[in-house]
Amino acid sequence: MSERAVTIEEAAPPPPPPPPSYSSVFLRLASLILRIFTFLLLLISLIVLCTNTVDVYPQKLRFQDIYAYRYMLSTIVIGTAYSLLQLALSIHNVVSGQDGILLLDFFGDKLISYLLASGTGAGFAITVDTKRLTDADPVFELIDIREFYDKAYASASLLLLAFCTTAMLSIISSYTLPKRV
Amino acid sequence: MSERAVTIEEAAPPPPPPPPSYSSVFLRLASLILRIFTFLLLLISLIVLCTNTVDVYPQKLRFQDIYAYRYMLSTIVIGTAYSLLQLALSIHNVVSGQDGILLLDFFGDKLISYLLASGTGAGFAITVDTKRLTDADPVFELIDIREFYDKAYASASLLLLAFCTTAMLSIISSYTLPKRV
Repeated sequence: MSERAVTIEEAAPPPPPPPPSYSSVFLRLASLILRIFTFLLLLISLIVLCTNTVDVYPQKLRFQDIYAYRYMLSTIVIGTAYSLLQLALSIHNVVSGQDGILLLDFFGDKLISYLLASGTGAGFAITVDTKRLTDADPVFELIDIREFYDKAYASASLLLLAFCTTAMLSIISSYTLPKRV
Repeated sequence: MSERAVTIEEAAPPPPPPPPSYSSVFLRLASLILRIFTFLLLLISLIVLCTNTVDVYPQKLRFQDIYAYRYMLSTIVIGTAYSLLQLALSIHNVVSGQDGILLLDFFGDKLISYLLASGTGAGFAITVDTKRLTDADPVFELIDIREFYDKAYASASLLLLAFCTTAMLSIISSYTLPKRV
């Protein structure tokens, strides 16, 4: 009995799981930081775009009146929701040391970065050309319509930065795809 | 002397390289077909956009007058040049059975698909909103300005299709990235 107890005590403990590699920990942390940036940029871009209204007597010019800004809004809203979800998953992965759902990261980051790229293109396209017209025409000095397009410009620039961080995330999640076909 | 010659003849030949796997051959062929489609779509989109001019007395309205279409043109030109280069490399890879430069495929497809996404966004943004105005205003019935925006719409739609094929190529080139970090 006593002999047996000694044998059990002396038995080697099961080997610990291999420690995560340096690059894996680094990538998880980089992802987390990029996701925080993406979320903040999209949130500020959303606020700037949604509060963009100007009085053009007898009515108001709101961002919803221009279809391109509506599309931009949809991409920002979808992007914000996705980055909030991924932020939660990312914090979980950093804390638990797990890899997370790599396929979701890969396709999600890819899809969202394409959406944000097209939203950025749409936002700048309509802003640049309309701003050229309003800046050139002295009629628009009297009303605040130039400010409207300046704000839209700011929102599109923030969206561009958010696209850049999402594109970096997409490169990371392509590299961490589990295996080659 | 004769003994030595026999030894050399009997030496085993070096083992042949392992045959390419089924999925690898399939992916190379799929890439080639997608690249042909991308090139053709971009080429037609380029022709439609560049020939888009309308007489608005006393002058002409050309696509260059709108900055968004200039941006769209740059993305189409860069995309066409890239897809022509990749088409040549792809044919070479299919014929020789080699894998090609996987990192060039990965970053090239990613960058070009983002460019085309933003170009598509820009093209549709400016077209949809301006088309709404010209379709609603009876003044524009007399001149061919509606046709101008219809053609721009067609060019943007072709660009959208080219973006879709490039996005598929980008997914393939992410999967064939050589190794996990």
